[in-house]
Amino acid sequence: MVPHLTTALTGPLLELEKTFLSRATHIEQWFRGQWLEHTPPFYGSVDLRNAGFKLAPVDMNLFPGGFNNLHSDFQSLCVQAAMAAIEKICPEARNLLLVPENHTRNQFYMQNVARLATILRQAGLNIRIGSLSPDITAPVTLDLPDGQSVLLEPLQRVGSAGRRLGVDGFNPCAVLLNNDLSGGVPPLLQGLHEQFVIPPVHAGWATRRKSQHFLAYNDVAADFADCVGIDPWLINPEFESCSQIDFHARQGEEQLAEAVDAVLTRVRRKYQEYGVQETPFVIVKADAGTYGMGIMTVRDASEVVGLNRRQRNKMAVVKEGLQVSDVLVQEGVHTFETVDEGVAEPVVYMIDRYVVGGFYRVHTARGRDENLNAPGMHFKPLSFETHCTLPDPCSAPDAPPNRFFAYGVVARLALLAASIEIERTAPQNA
Amino acid sequence: MVPHLTTALTGPLLELEKTFLSRATHIEQWFRGQWLEHTPPFYGSVDLRNAGFKLAPVDMNLFPGGFNNLHSDFQSLCVQAAMAAIEKICPEARNLLLVPENHTRNQFYMQNVARLATILRQAGLNIRIGSLSPDITAPVTLDLPDGQSVLLEPLQRVGSAGRRLGVDGFNPCAVLLNNDLSGGVPPLLQGLHEQFVIPPVHAGWATRRKSQHFLAYNDVAADFADCVGIDPWLINPEFESCSQIDFHARQGEEQLAEAVDAVLTRVRRKYQEYGVQETPFVIVKADAGTYGMGIMTVRDASEVVGLNRRQRNKMAVVKEGLQVSDVLVQEGVHTFETVDEGVAEPVVYMIDRYVVGGFYRVHTARGRDENLNAPGMHFKPLSFETHCTLPDPCSAPDAPPNRFFAYGVVARLALLAASIEIERTAPQNA
Repeated sequence: MVPHLTTALTGPLLELEKTFLSRATHIEQWFRGQWLEHTPPFYGSVDLRNAGFKLAPVDMNLFPGGFNNLHSDFQSLCVQAAMAAIEKICPEARNLLLVPENHTRNQFYMQNVARLATILRQAGLNIRIGSLSPDITAPVTLDLPDGQSVLLEPLQRVGSAGRRLGVDGFNPCAVLLNNDLSGGVPPLLQGLHEQFVIPPVHAGWATRRKSQHFLAYNDVAADFADCVGIDPWLINPEFESCSQIDFHARQGEEQLAEAVDAVLTRVRRKYQEYGVQETPFVIVKADAGTYGMGIMTVRDASEVVGLNRRQRNKMAVVKEGLQVSDVLVQEGVHTFETVDEGVAEPVVYMIDRYVVGGFYRVHTARGRDENLNAPGMHFKPLSFETHCTLPDPCSAPDAPPNRFFAYGVVARLALLAASIEIERTAPQNA
Repeated sequence: MVPHLTTALTGPLLELEKTFLSRATHIEQWFRGQWLEHTPPFYGSVDLRNAGFKLAPVDMNLFPGGFNNLHSDFQSLCVQAAMAAIEKICPEARNLLLVPENHTRNQFYMQNVARLATILRQAGLNIRIGSLSPDITAPVTLDLPDGQSVLLEPLQRVGSAGRRLGVDGFNPCAVLLNNDLSGGVPPLLQGLHEQFVIPPVHAGWATRRKSQHFLAYNDVAADFADCVGIDPWLINPEFESCSQIDFHARQGEEQLAEAVDAVLTRVRRKYQEYGVQETPFVIVKADAGTYGMGIMTVRDASEVVGLNRRQRNKMAVVKEGLQVSDVLVQEGVHTFETVDEGVAEPVVYMIDRYVVGGFYRVHTARGRDENLNAPGMHFKPLSFETHCTLPDPCSAPDAPPNRFFAYGVVARLALLAASIEIERTAPQNA
C-alpha cells in the first residue's frame, strides 16, 4: 500500500518529480562525484515531509532506530550495502561491537538492534552487543516478540592499559554506535584511539546541532538545485537558529519571536510565488536532541512570547535531561500524504551511500502540520514496498517507483549534508 | 518454486551446507580478505552442478548473457552492486559504451542487453550500445517481445587519431564488453589505452582457457577448504587438459584417452571414499569457447578413441569457427535437482563481488549427467526467488535460503578464481 497524496499533482512537485526522473542518470553522477569528496556516514535515516508543492528533509538521524520497520525484502540490500561500508571503513575488521540505547524495555527498539545485528553478521562480522546501561551488570538475554533474542553484555575497557572498548572475551576492531549519546560521551567511550568508532562520538547529540546540519544542507541543496535546475526552496526548509535561550527564566523570548517571524516572512513570500494557499507555520525545536521532545508548532511569532509554565517545561528539557538553550526555528512542511485517514511521513534508511529501504510513520491522531515523531505517540510503521533506486521513466512522475526515487534523492542529499556536517564539526577542525 | 533435490540429504552435501551455515560469518570475512588482494571482475555468471554429495562450478562466464532471466525483485541489488563496481573502477565515468554479441536476431539475448543497459543507467551512467556486427552500418532500433527496445549503433574509432572507441557523437570513458570475442579481438577494439575496457580483452575466448580458470580455482578451493575445514573435492571438479589435439587428423587421441582415464580414476577413488553409488563420468570440452559447443559426456576412456566423423566434426569447431586444439577433461558432476521432471542446473549472477541473483536452467530432454548449456537446446529459465546472501541459521541446512547461500558461496569462489586467472594471464605477465 502506498499513501495517497492528497494534493492534485499539477504544481511544483510534479515538476520536481519530473525533473528528477528526466535527470535520474545525471543525479546519480552528481552523487558519485560528491561521494568522491565526502565519506558517507556508516548509516542514517532521514525524516521527509511531502507537501505536494515541496519535498524536504526535516530531520537526519545518525543513529537510526527502526531497521525492524523495513520490509524483509530489503534485507539483502541492507547486507550488500553493509558489506560495501565495511569494505571502505575497516575491511580487515572481524569483530564489531554494537552499542545500543539504554532503553532495554522498549521492545520495538530492541527488535531494531536484533535486525541490525543480523545485517552485520550476514555482512561478515562477529557481533556482540555491549550496553552502557547501569542496569546491565552481567550478560542478559532479552527475548523479543518476533521470536528473536538479543544478548546484552556490560561494556568494559579491554586490552593493555584498558585502551580499548569491548565486552568480556571480545576485543573488537570497530565500535558501531546506535546510541545517540544524548547524555554526553560516557567515560567508557572516551579516548578510544585504537578502534574505529562509527559514527564518531562528536556526532552524538551532546555536541551535535541540527543547525549545523541544516547549514551544511543549505550548501548541498544549493549545489544540487543548480545542477538539476530547480529552486532550492523546493527541497530545503528555511530555518533560523537561536542560542542562549532560557525557557525557565523567560530569557531570549524576543530573539526567538524575531527568528519565527523571519522564517514565516520568507515562507509567506515563497507561498505567494508558487500560489500555495496553505497557512505557513514553523517548528520550534531543540537544536540538540531527538525523540521529538522539546517541539512546538507555531503559526505566529506572538505564540512564542509569554509561554505558560507547561509549555516552557516542555521546551526546556529533552532526552536524558539535556537542558535546551539552543533552538532551531524550522519552516514547517505540511505532510499531504494520508493512509487510512492517518497522516503519513516517509522515513528513508541508508547504509553507506545506498538507500536500503524506508517506511511511513502513520498517525491517525495528528494533523498535517504537526510533528509525527513525538514521545508517547504511537505511530504505525508502513514499510515501503518499492525500492527507492529504480525510477521508471515509462510511468507517471508520481507512480510509486518514481515517488520513492524522489524520496531517495532528497534523503541522500541530507546524508551528504551529514557527511559535510561531521567533517566540519570534527574536533581537530573546531 | 525451488527445485527438488532428489538425493536424500544425509551425505556430504548436508555436511557441506551445515559447514557453510555454521561458518557463514567467517566465510564472508575470508572473502573480504581475498577481495583486498584481488579485484573482482565487473560481472560474471557461474554454472553450478549440485550432485547432492558435491556442489561445484563447471563453467565461469565473464560476459554473462542472461540478466533478463533474473527475477525483477533483484533489480535493486543489481543497481546497487553496479554502483559499487563503477565507484571502484571508474568513479568519474559518465559515459559507458556497451558492446554486445553480434547475434542481434536472438531476442532472448537482446533482452539481456536491454536489462543490462537499464541496470547501468539506473546506476548513473549514460549508456549507448555499439555493435561490432558488420550488419549494423547505421543506427537500428530493435523492438523486443517484452516491450523494451534497444538502439544498436555501429562502433567507430573517435577522438584524436582515432585512439578511442565510441559511437557517433559519444566518446565514452569506459567500454563494457558483453561480447566474448570468440572470433579474436577485432581491429576496432585493439590498442585502446585511453579508456577502461571491462573485462580486459585478454579475458575473451580468443585467448582465455578454461584450464587456466580451473588451475586458479584449484588454488582458491584449496585455500577455502582449508579455511572452513572441508575436503576441497566437495567443491572442486577434477580435471586434466590436453593440447595439440587435431580431431580431424585423429592426432592426440591417446593423450586424450589417458587424460580421461586419469580423471575417472581419481573420481572413482573419491566415490569409493564417500560411498557414492553413481557411475563416474567426465565432460570433454574445448578449452576455449562457449555456448556448449564441442562437448562430450564420456564414461570410459575407450569412448574417445576412434571417434566417427560426426563426433569429430562436433568436437573440432566451436563458436565463430574457432578450431579446437586444446581440450579440457573435467569431472562430470551429476545434477540431482529436478523441476517438473526436468533436470535443473543453477546459474548464479554476480556484479563486482556481490551475488545479485540467479536462475535455474531447466531441461526436460536431458539426463542428469549431461551438459545443459548446449546449442539448440531450449532451456526454461526459472529465476531464484530467494536471495543468495541471507542464510537462515534457524532453518534446515537445505532450506532454500541456505541452499542458495551455498550456491552463492561456491559461485563467488569461481569469481575469485576468475580474478586470479585474469591477473595471471594479463599480457604483461605472459
